[in-house]
Amino acid sequence: MRPLDLLQQHLHQRVLVEMRGGRSYRGVLDAFDQHLNLVLSSAEEAANDRVSARAGQTLVRGDSIVYISP
Amino acid sequence: MRPLDLLQQHLHQRVLVEMRGGRSYRGVLDAFDQHLNLVLSSAEEAANDRVSARAGQTLVRGDSIVYISP
Amino acid sequence: MRPLDLLQQHLHQRVLVEMRGGRSYRGVLDAFDQHLNLVLSSAEEAANDRVSARAGQTLVRGDSIVYISP
Amino acid sequence: MRPLDLLQQHLHQRVLVEMRGGRSYRGVLDAFDQHLNLVLSSAEEAANDRVSARAGQTLVRGDSIVYISP
Amino acid sequence: MRPLDLLQQHLHQRVLVEMRGGRSYRGVLDAFDQHLNLVLSSAEEAANDRVSARAGQTLVRGDSIVYISP
Amino acid sequence: MRPLDLLQQHLHQRVLVEMRGGRSYRGVLDAFDQHLNLVLSSAEEAANDRVSARAGQTLVRGDSIVYISP
Amino acid sequence: MRPLDLLQQHLHQRVLVEMRGGRSYRGVLDAFDQHLNLVLSSAEEAANDRVSARAGQTLVRGDSIVYISP
Repeated sequence: MRPLDLLQQHLHQRVLVEMRGGRSYRGVLDAFDQHLNLVLSSAEEAANDRVSARAGQTLVRGDSIVYISP
Repeated sequence: MRPLDLLQQHLHQRVLVEMRGGRSYRGVLDAFDQHLNLVLSSAEEAANDRVSARAGQTLVRGDSIVYISP
Repeated sequence: MRPLDLLQQHLHQRVLVEMRGGRSYRGVLDAFDQHLNLVLSSAEEAANDRVSARAGQTLVRGDSIVYISP
Repeated sequence: MRPLDLLQQHLHQRVLVEMRGGRSYRGVLDAFDQHLNLVLSSAEEAANDRVSARAGQTLVRGDSIVYISP
Repeated sequence: MRPLDLLQQHLHQRVLVEMRGGRSYRGVLDAFDQHLNLVLSSAEEAANDRVSARAGQTLVRGDSIVYISP
Repeated sequence: MRPLDLLQQHLHQRVLVEMRGGRSYRGVLDAFDQHLNLVLSSAEEAANDRVSARAGQTLVRGDSIVYISP
Repeated sequence: MRPLDLLQQHLHQRVLVEMRGGRSYRGVLDAFDQHLNLVLSSAEEAANDRVSARAGQTLVRGDSIVYISP
């Protein structure tokens, strides 16, 4: 098993994406690439104790990601 | 679907671009490349609770982008 | 012996992963690649003296890792 | 249209270059490359509410650029 | 002599590894690669005036290393 | 004209090199490469309102350079 | 002349190496490579107004170097 295989297993499922700087996103994983760029749908962003919903699909850049978990 | 396909779908539509360091831009997505460099038109920048309009087209460097959403 | 051989030896064993910025993870090492991207299962995250458990498998991005030890 | 085409269109015109860390430059765009390294002439630098003029041509390194707009 | 030759000479000897952000490690150098990823055994970590011992072997990521000395 | 052509034109002339973190150097540009690594002679460093002279030639690493101007 | 030629000229001579974050090293330059990784002997480290001597040879990682001068 390689690390990115985990993302393949979680496609179309809800994931938690923790970012540098204290942000995090929860959403359904619709796509990813080898740089860990992600597309999330029905995403919620949590930053500094504020939660905000993002309509449609969000492209999250892989650079700032710390971890991804179910 | 690959993550950058999302940008192809949003070409010529209004997007929100969240940057590191608390800036964000809203504008119409006129162009992008694989580094996530973007061209936005009719862009508005929000930084530290100040909003300012940018006339014409703005080239946003992909390096500092955290996410892009509709 | 090359450094990544150590991870091969620790596959399926519990490891401590120390990150930049004061976070750390403990979990069973299920997978890794040459960028030090890791998959941990039964992971616990410690950040700012708060410990939280992550169900299932977590993908930790190698970029922010400082060290990995048993 | 690719993002760097925008710079081609703005050659020999006045642009605003916003940098990380709160600096910005205004000047005439005399040259650029694919790293977004720029040559500006008649440039003015704004940093921490101080504006200073730079005689001749200035080479701005692309690494620290956030956006470029007319 | 090339810089990494120094690590070859120090294999199986005790070294001091100084990291960005004020951490340092002392341990026996068991392995290294061209990215300066290191394996240390019998390692001690010093961070913010706290010293803690790490049992077994520790993989230190080269990215955050400032210097390595005997 | 490409951006690095500007450095070719300024060879053997006095330049100002502004760095990240508030340092700057003034000196005669003796050499450069495509990474913007520079050799300056008769250099003066200004950092935090202190100016200090460096005898001989100084190699400035391109990574931390923000701009170079005459 | 290319910038790294300066290091060739300074081989086996005493140099000052200024680092990001306020550290600096003085020592005899025994080796270097194209990443500016250096080996210094009889090195002294100055950090936050503390000077400490390092016995033997020290490998300084090029990434954090700001400048090197005689």
